[in-house]
Amino acid sequence: MVISKPSIPKGTRDFGPVEMARRNYIFDTIRSVFKSFGYSQIETPAMENLSTLMGKYGDEGDKLLFRILNSGDAFADIDPEKPIASQVCEKGLRYDLTVPFARFVVQHQAEISFPFKRFQIQPVWRADRPQKGRYREFYQCDVDAIGSKSQMCETELVQIVDNVFGKLGVRVAMKINNRKVLSGLAEICGFPDKVVDITVAIDKLDKIGLDAVKEEMKAKGLSEEAVAMLEPVLTLEGGNEEKIATMRTLMAGSETGLQGLDELEELFGFIKAAGVAIPCEIDLSLARGLNYYTGAIFEVKALDFEIGSICGGGRYDNLTGIFGLKDMSGVGVSFGADRIYDVLTGLEAFPDGLGSSSKILFANMGAGEAAYVMPVASELRKQGIPVEIYPESSKLKKQFDYADRKGIPFISICGTSEMEASTVQIKNLSTGEQKSFASGDMKSICDFVAGN
Amino acid sequence: MVISKPSIPKGTRDFGPVEMARRNYIFDTIRSVFKSFGYSQIETPAMENLSTLMGKYGDEGDKLLFRILNSGDAFADIDPEKPIASQVCEKGLRYDLTVPFARFVVQHQAEISFPFKRFQIQPVWRADRPQKGRYREFYQCDVDAIGSKSQMCETELVQIVDNVFGKLGVRVAMKINNRKVLSGLAEICGFPDKVVDITVAIDKLDKIGLDAVKEEMKAKGLSEEAVAMLEPVLTLEGGNEEKIATMRTLMAGSETGLQGLDELEELFGFIKAAGVAIPCEIDLSLARGLNYYTGAIFEVKALDFEIGSICGGGRYDNLTGIFGLKDMSGVGVSFGADRIYDVLTGLEAFPDGLGSSSKILFANMGAGEAAYVMPVASELRKQGIPVEIYPESSKLKKQFDYADRKGIPFISICGTSEMEASTVQIKNLSTGEQKSFASGDMKSICDFVAGN
Repeated sequence: MVISKPSIPKGTRDFGPVEMARRNYIFDTIRSVFKSFGYSQIETPAMENLSTLMGKYGDEGDKLLFRILNSGDAFADIDPEKPIASQVCEKGLRYDLTVPFARFVVQHQAEISFPFKRFQIQPVWRADRPQKGRYREFYQCDVDAIGSKSQMCETELVQIVDNVFGKLGVRVAMKINNRKVLSGLAEICGFPDKVVDITVAIDKLDKIGLDAVKEEMKAKGLSEEAVAMLEPVLTLEGGNEEKIATMRTLMAGSETGLQGLDELEELFGFIKAAGVAIPCEIDLSLARGLNYYTGAIFEVKALDFEIGSICGGGRYDNLTGIFGLKDMSGVGVSFGADRIYDVLTGLEAFPDGLGSSSKILFANMGAGEAAYVMPVASELRKQGIPVEIYPESSKLKKQFDYADRKGIPFISICGTSEMEASTVQIKNLSTGEQKSFASGDMKSICDFVAGN
Repeated sequence: MVISKPSIPKGTRDFGPVEMARRNYIFDTIRSVFKSFGYSQIETPAMENLSTLMGKYGDEGDKLLFRILNSGDAFADIDPEKPIASQVCEKGLRYDLTVPFARFVVQHQAEISFPFKRFQIQPVWRADRPQKGRYREFYQCDVDAIGSKSQMCETELVQIVDNVFGKLGVRVAMKINNRKVLSGLAEICGFPDKVVDITVAIDKLDKIGLDAVKEEMKAKGLSEEAVAMLEPVLTLEGGNEEKIATMRTLMAGSETGLQGLDELEELFGFIKAAGVAIPCEIDLSLARGLNYYTGAIFEVKALDFEIGSICGGGRYDNLTGIFGLKDMSGVGVSFGADRIYDVLTGLEAFPDGLGSSSKILFANMGAGEAAYVMPVASELRKQGIPVEIYPESSKLKKQFDYADRKGIPFISICGTSEMEASTVQIKNLSTGEQKSFASGDMKSICDFVAGN
């Protein structure tokens, strides 16, 4: 029998011990911050009914859904006149965490205490063409507060971003906009129905530049005058207060626009009161592709590493409307775990020793010696020190190599002389320092290995 | 537009905040024990190539695989003469963690330091008929050491089981058998080629009783004499040493059987040396359905709650052979998270307050008051106390209700008088005790809420 080397589907990944420890470090940090603000974790199934998923991500999104073949004989009783795919698949893999969250809120509304502060860290699947940095399976990490219109919620999310990146040791800056201001712009330039077109065009400012954005606006049907009216807004300079003041004059004719500016002003007041450390700046070119945002819009970028946004989100007033629950406003942000991983790797900002799981390797000098160190190892584990005993009495070189490859910083070699004297010998593999301890003297052993 | 109430596919589940906190408590406990023994976490993709999965779980298993429709136009260029399903699906959802682990070891063998001690906690999917306690998506939690034949590995797994259930506060007992002993039985009764049939029959002893097992053995072709010869073995009584001694006499003619008894004896010696607290008992009727075990076999049951086995596993000598890597012996156990959840629920053994994420709710008395408590809340979070501020200045009753429903034990109401005096008032909602603190006196506040 010829057995080919096994592989995994394109666009998917295995995570080995070191990558996994690093990813867990990121998720644990984020999770601890979410919890410190009273957010609760939920999980939804990997499979959703296609009726839940379809039509929520546009035509392009529908095509990128992974569909699951019905179980049993999926191809029995097919009507050849109708499209086959929709007859043989009723379920699909979740495409993001937002739609399942909306579905969860509607389905469980009777059990939920609103405002509902939840977070969710789970993989999502998209049948995108795999390419560098784009995967068909990747984790999303979303935090949302739903059921309150108060900008205290926005403020909390800004604080969360501040705390997360502070803990991770990554310098970031946050850009903030408000969708109502964008609507106001569309109103004052005389094309209130073109807000989506204008928003989409503005969103490209960073990528294609001012002239191309202006061309795109014209191509979408805006008049020369309208585009000219919008231009000063796109090139607005100055501090946040200055920007708001300038905009107030421009926006005087738009109630919605002024409301957006009021919201921005209130939010910046809260951010100041909360003592947020990261720089937060109004950026009217920030629109983000998704067009369900109705209020604040956020985007976070790393300051010392070149990569796209590593976190973003905003307020939506009608997330659950698609499932029949109206007037449920919420706000959320999503942390891009893969990009944050790349940033921490690039900045060498992961803590040392994440990959190694044990502090001490007890070398195996034979069955009797192994039995001698077993209770010592058990006691150290009780003290919170992860340790392991090499399972076989192999050559010492092999055992040292194992410690080296796993990044275990200490080795203990206990032979007959240690057994007779009831001692334990421990060596620091990086400094070469070696010490002998009474086998019951856990405190001294813990102190010695904690010094590493 | 009529919008139907959203639902999830049958056999799947949503996990809300309380269930999630309880599940995390179980997984975190298990994970911390795995790590204390030097095991590293890995993750593999939800989707595997069907060529990896097919033929590994028997015909029945193949039918229970969830298949994923190829992306793009899956139904273009179909040959109607051939089965359709295999032409339109190349990927499937993982059915367990064992086959992906074997695939991982073979694919990454060059990067792995053996013995490789890994654990994996991920969902698996099976198109089983959903019924009470059986789901189409459920988590498996596997720990394995691969690349060593030493029974130090078995011992470590027994210690892990001991520590996990000790930490969870669940009294359990472990049954241990050895597959070589079962092979020895088949040899001594004269039907060495019937070891699988005998094993499968013996496995049913608990369920169908001795007489039915004997009937089944006869139906499988064993002679009356062979069945009679096996009977005393099935009804063996006494302690572990006694059982081994009795078996040694019976097994004198089988080298394999004697080797199995040697292994059992060595393992019980190690278990004693390691100071394992849970009772471990030889049970020769323990066979488990899977027939890839080649040495030790384990099963764990709760003593104070009626449910099937909550953990089990064994040694396999040829896990990676299916992918072309020979002579890679390993041993592992799997923890049944759903059943452990049921046991902890039934015994009311979950710690208190798992569902509540915050310690203090700061009531919202208005924008100015909220701004006043923001820095206090931030400082408490830095001290490790999760707290939240109610986002809206709603009626106090509503805010109290929110604290109550979320299980938040303390509420702080700070109005103008507190702001003027720079104090913070905190009330214990269960005792009614109320105290006032200087707003910067974090230590006293932390002590007060830690007393809960």
